Amino acid sequence: MKKGNPYGTHRVIEPKGSLPQPALKISNDMEIYDNEILIDVDYLNIDSASFTQLLGEAQGNIEVVKFMIMKIVKERGKMQNPVTGSGGMLIGTVQQIGNKLIDSTDLKVGDKVATLVSLSLTPLKINMIKKINPDIERVEIDGKAILFESGIYAKIPSDLEETLALAALDVAGAPAQVQKLVKPGDNILILGATGKSGLMCCCKAKEMIGSEGLVIGQARNEKRKDFLESTNFCDKTIIADVLDPIDVLDKIHETLNGNEVDITINCLSIPNTELSSILPTRNGGIVYFFSMATSFTKAALGAEGVGKDVTMIIGNGYTKNHTQITLDLLRDSKKLRNIFEMKYL
Amino acid sequence: MKKGNPYGTHRVIEPKGSLPQPALKISNDMEIYDNEILIDVDYLNIDSASFTQLLGEAQGNIEVVKFMIMKIVKERGKMQNPVTGSGGMLIGTVQQIGNKLIDSTDLKVGDKVATLVSLSLTPLKINMIKKINPDIERVEIDGKAILFESGIYAKIPSDLEETLALAALDVAGAPAQVQKLVKPGDNILILGATGKSGLMCCCKAKEMIGSEGLVIGQARNEKRKDFLESTNFCDKTIIADVLDPIDVLDKIHETLNGNEVDITINCLSIPNTELSSILPTRNGGIVYFFSMATSFTKAALGAEGVGKDVTMIIGNGYTKNHTQITLDLLRDSKKLRNIFEMKYL
Repeated sequence: MKKGNPYGTHRVIEPKGSLPQPALKISNDMEIYDNEILIDVDYLNIDSASFTQLLGEAQGNIEVVKFMIMKIVKERGKMQNPVTGSGGMLIGTVQQIGNKLIDSTDLKVGDKVATLVSLSLTPLKINMIKKINPDIERVEIDGKAILFESGIYAKIPSDLEETLALAALDVAGAPAQVQKLVKPGDNILILGATGKSGLMCCCKAKEMIGSEGLVIGQARNEKRKDFLESTNFCDKTIIADVLDPIDVLDKIHETLNGNEVDITINCLSIPNTELSSILPTRNGGIVYFFSMATSFTKAALGAEGVGKDVTMIIGNGYTKNHTQITLDLLRDSKKLRNIFEMKYL
Repeated sequence: MKKGNPYGTHRVIEPKGSLPQPALKISNDMEIYDNEILIDVDYLNIDSASFTQLLGEAQGNIEVVKFMIMKIVKERGKMQNPVTGSGGMLIGTVQQIGNKLIDSTDLKVGDKVATLVSLSLTPLKINMIKKINPDIERVEIDGKAILFESGIYAKIPSDLEETLALAALDVAGAPAQVQKLVKPGDNILILGATGKSGLMCCCKAKEMIGSEGLVIGQARNEKRKDFLESTNFCDKTIIADVLDPIDVLDKIHETLNGNEVDITINCLSIPNTELSSILPTRNGGIVYFFSMATSFTKAALGAEGVGKDVTMIIGNGYTKNHTQITLDLLRDSKKLRNIFEMKYL
C-alpha cells in the first residue's frame, strides 16, 4: 500500500498544497493508502444549509437534487456544496483498514460507524442514489468513502437505532459546545430552536442554566411555537422573524424587561441572520454561530456597525467528548428521544 | 428634519427589513435625518482585503480601481466591496448635526473625526477621487458621508498627525482585542505580522505575555523577516507560506520543540488561510480571525476536518475603549510610531 499523509493531503488534486476540505477537487479512487479506512456507505446526512440550498435551486424537485448531488461528487470527488461550502456526514460499514492502522485503531472490518468529519473533505464515490428523504435531509446510497487517519468517527452504539444515532451525531458539536459555554444563571436565546440542533441545544442549555437562568427559544410561527412549548425545553418561547433583526431585538426586550441575553446560539440554516444574533445579545456577551450559512464579514462588520462589543464564535463541529455528550443527551431525555424517533427515524 | 432609526434602517432601499451593513443598496441622499451627522470627507481608508481584491481585479491599474470605487458607491450608496463584503473607514470634518443629537453629542460643527463604523454601512457620495495611494490603501476624495446615531467615531487627537491617527484607528479593534485575549505566559502566533494590524498586535501581545510567553511573528520572506526582527516586537520570527498549512505547522513545531501555540491571531488579507491558523494552535487554544478574507465554512469545517478542538473567534472591529488602547499604543511605543510615520503618513 502507498503511504498517506494523516490529513489526506495525498488525495488533493486541485489546488496543490491545500488540505482536502478547502480543495476544489480530491481523488475518490477507492484503492486505499496505508493509513486510510474504506467504508461501504449506507446513508449520507446532508448538512442542513447545503440541503436547503440544493432543494431551493432544484425548485423542490427531488430528481433534480439527485442529479445535482451526483454531479457535485463526480466533479469534486466529495459531497461539498459549491454555494454553501458545507457537507454533512455519513454512516456505513468498515470494509478495509490500511496496514499502518490495523494495530492502532479500535475499529475492525464489519463495524458500523458514523464519520464525524465533514463530507466536504471525505473522498466519496456514489454508484447510485437509492432514495432521498427531504424531511430529514438523508440520502440512501450505494457507494464507498474513505476515512483519513486524522478523521474522527463514532461506532454506532448498540442501545440506539442507527438512523437515530446518525441524526444526533450529525449535530454532535452543538450540544457539546453548549455544555462548555453556558453557565448557571445565564439567559440564553436559541435561534432556530425547533430544528434538530436547536432542540438539542435547548435541552442541553436548560440542563446547564440552573434555576436562575432562562432558555428562550425562537420559533417562526404559532404552530412551531406550540410544539416547542410542548417540549418544556425552554423557559420562554418567542415568535420572531430572523431576517428582521429589530423584530428579534424587540421580542427579547419584551421578554427580559428591556434587557438583552448573555448568549445567543444561532442554529438556523438560512443566510442573513447575523445581526439577528448580534442585536439581542448584551455588550460583553457571546454569540455562537452554528449555522453554516453564516457570513464571516456580515458578522464582523455587522457587530462593528452597530457598535456591539460581543464575542462571536465560529461553531466547531468537533470538541472533546462530543459524541458521548450528544448520545447521553438522547439517553437521558426521554422526551428528546421520543421527538427524534418521531422526526428522524 | 425627518426622524431616523438609530441603526439607519430608514436609509435601506434593498432588501427592506435589512440593516444598512448587509443591505445591497442604501440611500446616499445627503439631506440628513434628525439623528444623523453629515461629514465632509477628506480620505477613505479602504479595508485591506477589499483593496487587495480591487487592485487584483484591476490588474494593478489605479485608474481602473478609481472607476471601480466610483461604480460601487454609485450602485450601493456605500463603499462596500461586492466580493469581500468589507469596507474600511473615513476621516473628515463635521458639517451638520441632526436636531435630535445637538444636545447629546460631544461633537460640534468643524470637528475633525474618524468614523469607526465600517464604510460597508456608511452612506457615501463621491464627487471626485483626487488621488489613490495604493501602498497605504488610502483614497483622497471630494465627497460627503453620513454617520448614524449608533455609529461610533473618534475625534482626531491633537498630539498625533491626522493621517497617522487614521492609519491606526483603521485597525483599532485588533490591538484592543489582543489586550482582552492574551494572558501572561501565553505563546502567540501572529500571521501577517509585518502588516499594519499585525505590527500593532505583535507590539500589544509582547506587552501582555510577560517574561514567560513568546510572541512568534510570521513573515513571508527574508526581507520582511529582517524588518520584523528589527522591531523587537517578537521573540521569534518564522518564514512560512500561509497557503500551506503543513509548512506553518512544521515551522511552529520547530520553534516550540514539537508543541503548538496557545493563541493564533490571523492578520492576513488573502483567502484560504483558515487551516494555517488552526493547525499550529493547540487543542483547547484560541484562533482569532481579523482577516476579512476569512471564510466561515472553511474555518468551521476545517477545524472539524482535522479534529481540532479550538475556539475560533470572528474579529470584532469594536470593543470597549478600543480607540484609546490603540492610540496609546502609538504614544507609548516610539518604535511603532516611527514605523507608522515612515509607512503610513
